[in-house]
Amino acid sequence: MTLAQAVLDKDRLALSRLLTRVENDTQEGRAALAELFPHTGKAHLIGVTGAPGTGKSTLVNQMALHYRKQDGKRVAIVAVDPSSPFTGGAVLGDRVRMRDLAGDPNVFIRSMASRGSLGGLAQTTAAVVQVFDAAGFDVILIETVGAGQAEVDIARLAHTTLVVEAPGLGDDIQAIKAGILEIADVLVINKADRPGVENTERALKSMLELAHPVKRVFRHHGQTMTVPAQEVEEDTLLWIPPVQRTVATDGTGIPELAEAIARHAEHLRQSGDWVARERARLQSELDALIQETLVSRFRADVSEKRYEEALSQVIQRSLSPWEAVRMLMNGRKG
Amino acid sequence: MTLAQAVLDKDRLALSRLLTRVENDTQEGRAALAELFPHTGKAHLIGVTGAPGTGKSTLVNQMALHYRKQDGKRVAIVAVDPSSPFTGGAVLGDRVRMRDLAGDPNVFIRSMASRGSLGGLAQTTAAVVQVFDAAGFDVILIETVGAGQAEVDIARLAHTTLVVEAPGLGDDIQAIKAGILEIADVLVINKADRPGVENTERALKSMLELAHPVKRVFRHHGQTMTVPAQEVEEDTLLWIPPVQRTVATDGTGIPELAEAIARHAEHLRQSGDWVARERARLQSELDALIQETLVSRFRADVSEKRYEEALSQVIQRSLSPWEAVRMLMNGRKG
Repeated sequence: MTLAQAVLDKDRLALSRLLTRVENDTQEGRAALAELFPHTGKAHLIGVTGAPGTGKSTLVNQMALHYRKQDGKRVAIVAVDPSSPFTGGAVLGDRVRMRDLAGDPNVFIRSMASRGSLGGLAQTTAAVVQVFDAAGFDVILIETVGAGQAEVDIARLAHTTLVVEAPGLGDDIQAIKAGILEIADVLVINKADRPGVENTERALKSMLELAHPVKRVFRHHGQTMTVPAQEVEEDTLLWIPPVQRTVATDGTGIPELAEAIARHAEHLRQSGDWVARERARLQSELDALIQETLVSRFRADVSEKRYEEALSQVIQRSLSPWEAVRMLMNGRKG
Repeated sequence: MTLAQAVLDKDRLALSRLLTRVENDTQEGRAALAELFPHTGKAHLIGVTGAPGTGKSTLVNQMALHYRKQDGKRVAIVAVDPSSPFTGGAVLGDRVRMRDLAGDPNVFIRSMASRGSLGGLAQTTAAVVQVFDAAGFDVILIETVGAGQAEVDIARLAHTTLVVEAPGLGDDIQAIKAGILEIADVLVINKADRPGVENTERALKSMLELAHPVKRVFRHHGQTMTVPAQEVEEDTLLWIPPVQRTVATDGTGIPELAEAIARHAEHLRQSGDWVARERARLQSELDALIQETLVSRFRADVSEKRYEEALSQVIQRSLSPWEAVRMLMNGRKG
């Protein structure tokens, strides 16, 4: 029996071993991914992103518990930390503390620290998510730390993206978040028992207006009118990110959050966006693979010596990088 | 006269126009870059990164003023904000407020907001920096917002990288910074007149110990010993990032910071690291160009129709992405 078959048979040890091979990008890992691929496409991928200090990991753990206990779903957690090799351990530590999840055979937690390039990390995360999807996990929670392009790239993997805030993190922090609000399908204010929660909610809602200024244009008494996203009724096919309050440490607001996520999934299916997101995800994966294959073929074709010569000339400024590329391309075999 | 020649002649209007063409990646922009390339390699590239709220922009402005007034150097500022399209305006606003720099023909400020992919932004920043370098700017300050891989990639451009902190931004913020400490050549605690500056300095120094645990191995009484970076004397060829306190709003500590930066440049030249960094920078630029050229050739070779067919089969899970790539590669012309 291959490793991939054992994974399809829900063998946890095989799953763990395969994940390591996929993370290390071995030949065996790649072969298994190809074998598993036809079995993917069933899971609901939920991205959870937010700055450190928002209690994101605790929230993810509580969501996992909820899906286990209320819905009997099989849950995988992929914790991705692209910002630092140092915090990988902290994320893992948090997992270990979460006794309620430990020992449950229908929960699988994988922490991934940054290795190599960021593009590489997004690609590896996509592969790990595929393994969990094929292995029959119904819900895959993808947790990323921080704010920035890294999170946007990884969030593109998800069907539903949660952006987590907390009261009292300061205006500076809020400012940098404007960018990631655009990727939010659901906004979560965690630690909602803290003072300042109203301010945070107000700030988020006004930023939402900036990010989604006008969602619908209609005619009223013969005039064209535009309506801010917040004022449009919920029964239309557009999605206005709801703002959910939670206190992850005691579970407050988790069922309501799960409901908002379920509504979003329903919205995606009705509007056709589920298919569109799947398509965008697989296309970016295909493009990344094409790029990688082209580069490795080029490296096989062009000798190290010729490459080094071209680079030396560039460093001496006797050849521009553009001329160097033209020279290397023309001298390829085949 | 070509645009590139006008730029070499220090024509500001030509410089401004060329930068726009380079940012938009036009044919004319590329041709000018190739023409300017032999004139590059003279400027000192200084990267400045740090979280919002650290007063980084004000610090950069003060540094520019210092280099102008004390050293008579020509200074360019490239402000890069990869995290959000929204904050681009804020950065620019800060520039406008800086009256002391406005109207000085030997200062040029360019704000770049995020466009397209992050790799793209790093590449565009590299090209903009090359234009300034060829145009005879002695010091190029490259300012980036936030913390993460984006900043690391852009910092790789610089000879000297400053990481800016401020007291009272909270432990959570400090934690995420551990990763970018590794790229710091000089650490700056700005807003050093605020309470908590000692704590911030202590935290930074202990994180430095983590990031640079052992810098030198030597023999003592026949035994091999390792020495923490902090205990090694300054006269050796290794560089321990100094921690500099500044109050950018009133200029306190700016001359001392400039001195630390000058010491670092001297260290780079003596140790051979200046050449090594130049080489790494040009190599990553060459590799990015090779990749881009390969992908655009592939797109020209493979018809949209064949690509779309392969993608459709992947979406239907009847073909894995790996099989799709193999199929597309084999069917290429030439």
